[in-house]
Amino acid sequence: MSQSAPQTIDLLIEARWVVPVEPHNVVLEQHAVAIDGERIVGILPIAEARTAYAPRERVELGEHVLIPGLINTHTHNPMTLLRGLADDLPLMVWLQQHIWPVEGKVIGPEFVRDGVELAVAEMIRGGTTCANENYFFPDAIGATYRKLGFRAVVGLPVIEFPTAWARTQDEYFERAAETHDSFRHDALVRTAFAPHAPYTVSDESFERIRVMADQLDIPVHLHLHETANEVEEERKKSGLRPFQRLQKLGLINDRLIAVHMTQLTEGEMAACAEAGVSVVHCPESNLKLASGFCPAEKLRKAGVNLAIGTDGCASNNDLDMFGEMRTAALLAKAVAEDAAAFDAGYALRTATIQGAKALGLEASIGSIEAGKQADLAAVRLSDLETQPLFHVISQLVYATGRHQVTDVWIAGKRKLAARELVDLDTVGMLARTHAWRERIASLDKG
Amino acid sequence: MSQSAPQTIDLLIEARWVVPVEPHNVVLEQHAVAIDGERIVGILPIAEARTAYAPRERVELGEHVLIPGLINTHTHNPMTLLRGLADDLPLMVWLQQHIWPVEGKVIGPEFVRDGVELAVAEMIRGGTTCANENYFFPDAIGATYRKLGFRAVVGLPVIEFPTAWARTQDEYFERAAETHDSFRHDALVRTAFAPHAPYTVSDESFERIRVMADQLDIPVHLHLHETANEVEEERKKSGLRPFQRLQKLGLINDRLIAVHMTQLTEGEMAACAEAGVSVVHCPESNLKLASGFCPAEKLRKAGVNLAIGTDGCASNNDLDMFGEMRTAALLAKAVAEDAAAFDAGYALRTATIQGAKALGLEASIGSIEAGKQADLAAVRLSDLETQPLFHVISQLVYATGRHQVTDVWIAGKRKLAARELVDLDTVGMLARTHAWRERIASLDKG
Repeated sequence: MSQSAPQTIDLLIEARWVVPVEPHNVVLEQHAVAIDGERIVGILPIAEARTAYAPRERVELGEHVLIPGLINTHTHNPMTLLRGLADDLPLMVWLQQHIWPVEGKVIGPEFVRDGVELAVAEMIRGGTTCANENYFFPDAIGATYRKLGFRAVVGLPVIEFPTAWARTQDEYFERAAETHDSFRHDALVRTAFAPHAPYTVSDESFERIRVMADQLDIPVHLHLHETANEVEEERKKSGLRPFQRLQKLGLINDRLIAVHMTQLTEGEMAACAEAGVSVVHCPESNLKLASGFCPAEKLRKAGVNLAIGTDGCASNNDLDMFGEMRTAALLAKAVAEDAAAFDAGYALRTATIQGAKALGLEASIGSIEAGKQADLAAVRLSDLETQPLFHVISQLVYATGRHQVTDVWIAGKRKLAARELVDLDTVGMLARTHAWRERIASLDKG
Repeated sequence: MSQSAPQTIDLLIEARWVVPVEPHNVVLEQHAVAIDGERIVGILPIAEARTAYAPRERVELGEHVLIPGLINTHTHNPMTLLRGLADDLPLMVWLQQHIWPVEGKVIGPEFVRDGVELAVAEMIRGGTTCANENYFFPDAIGATYRKLGFRAVVGLPVIEFPTAWARTQDEYFERAAETHDSFRHDALVRTAFAPHAPYTVSDESFERIRVMADQLDIPVHLHLHETANEVEEERKKSGLRPFQRLQKLGLINDRLIAVHMTQLTEGEMAACAEAGVSVVHCPESNLKLASGFCPAEKLRKAGVNLAIGTDGCASNNDLDMFGEMRTAALLAKAVAEDAAAFDAGYALRTATIQGAKALGLEASIGSIEAGKQADLAAVRLSDLETQPLFHVISQLVYATGRHQVTDVWIAGKRKLAARELVDLDTVGMLARTHAWRERIASLDKG
């Protein structure tokens, strides 16, 4: 029997378990993932991998499950610097007396850079490898993600009043075009339009966004139907629910990433499924701000692509996608009055492949498949908190803490090694965080 | 100026912050807690403590907050060995095809001993120092808690059918009396009656429990109004809601620890407050089993003593009281439609002093006060996931993971030191856990 020479590759990761997400609900035992450059080139049993490949680096994960890196499909990561600034307050007091006045004084390239850096460190340590970002100064934000080697879709903000980012509507669109252009050829950073919400964006701006998003071929990332009050106010103003208004404007299509969606009719859910709208469920933010209950299980049953996100650290107060998966699964059961609803395997999909699909990136991330980007997280399951172990995916969703993430790769590059951040200046970052803390605390007169 | 000689004590813990819980919402900076034997003897600024005391041991916690050990007011800890055995199933399939058949084959002193040991390890690593236990073989359970030096109130089960623990009603009460007697003088282990639920316990047994609980001066720990179906079935049978039936039987009094309570009228809430009933809210179990939403904020406003619990690991799937505090606070806001509801300071009380009160132990545990037992947990807040830090109590509830607990004491004895379990055979325990896993997996034919 002749045997072909082993193929030289950059990296072979051998794991006790691999959960590739595609195919669905599969747990591969004693499998290896072969990586060359930024891509996955094979998934096969460890014994076979050892003869098939000659890896430059081999990583053995004897007590771990290897999963696709998690995708946080709704973040405001500069706000990580406002974590816990003002909790347990009515929404308007929180916004008007704390968050907005402080943001007004600190916002700018330095604030977003330092906030994103802290967020990236937290995300990597929690197994997250991609963020759908939504904040001002996307140029500085994108540059930070690029510098740190973190995958992100950076929102190009549009809102109907002047901010530090842009003074006029024309300027919002000019800066959006410029920012998009500067990341057009980036390997990790993409862009999306990020109109704030129907109540802060005019019909005219939405129409410009529709045209330009088509031209640039990018998603539209929008807060939608976050609260019953938002829906009621729009009805009073235009006679339409916000969703109907967007339908009229041609925005209900497969570019739309509709975030929150706590208020939905059966017809709206069917329309989302038919049009290919992705919905991003942010269960912990919705609970903490008492926004309402997203009908997550109904959306699943309607065939809507559902992703999950943490929202910003001012309303969560973390970027923990393990926590978010778990809360999403638990809450969906209670809301659906069905303990079998929103099972663990589905929860993992909302945090991986369905997030990728929402971002238009399902061909390159969201699952462990040959040809895809090597965005991976290793999770140690030998801790006594995850023993005994009967079902790997259940354990990941219902019992695993993000601190059990030990190793992370983005596009084949190691970002976390045995819990240590690889190429991030943690000491400097914490010093900058502390300096912001002092400044923000002195500004918060709420 | 003369100065008295420093007082010799066993232990001085110096912490960056101390949150004593009583007084409410206080954060003491750079304070020390002085401990002699099993008791707290003083709380004072570090500088003063250094002159006042000559401690045999000094522990410096420069980046930590010291809090009272958390109290898990509803557990079925032997079921930790069934963690994740059967998730995402309708309640009756879960119980009848998985949990009960497996329990029937494994239950006994060895199962409860090994399950409690694993639970104790998990609880200590998560800052929990007291459990309100509810399972069969309380004699073996109590012996395990005693051996491991963990504080517990052990339930004396009563149910209206034969089990491996007792064959007849008389035998349930005989074994209850014996078990109570064997722990009567124990420093750490107390007992409570634990009638399973109104639908599995007769009027006659409830009457015996009422009389005997008075004689023995112990609480009554009962699942009550867990689901709407339970309330409806009782109404069909007796014409009364379970709560009304218990009122008639004289059980609605300050001994009662009523667990779950997702179905409550305003009148029932007022009756709980007036009678001094404690309610135990198990938010994650209620979500996962789709049991319903406990009106936690209404109970708070009604003046009811509210505690929280994880429930068993077959329905949670962990014993994480940090997670449970957070879920309780988040969920209560959404249910009350008020982002200001169930604030962080209150959430911490439900996991400490209010749990102690439910158990009748508020004179000895639940807060850091001179004269109380030294049940303490140190939580490291310097992790980047808890930075920046604006408000210590908010951060504890909304951003802290249980893995940030570094050190734990129960009755003045160190149980966790820099994340290491002090006097627990972790290797042997994990081997026993794995052996149970193999046996249980082979039995689970569901």
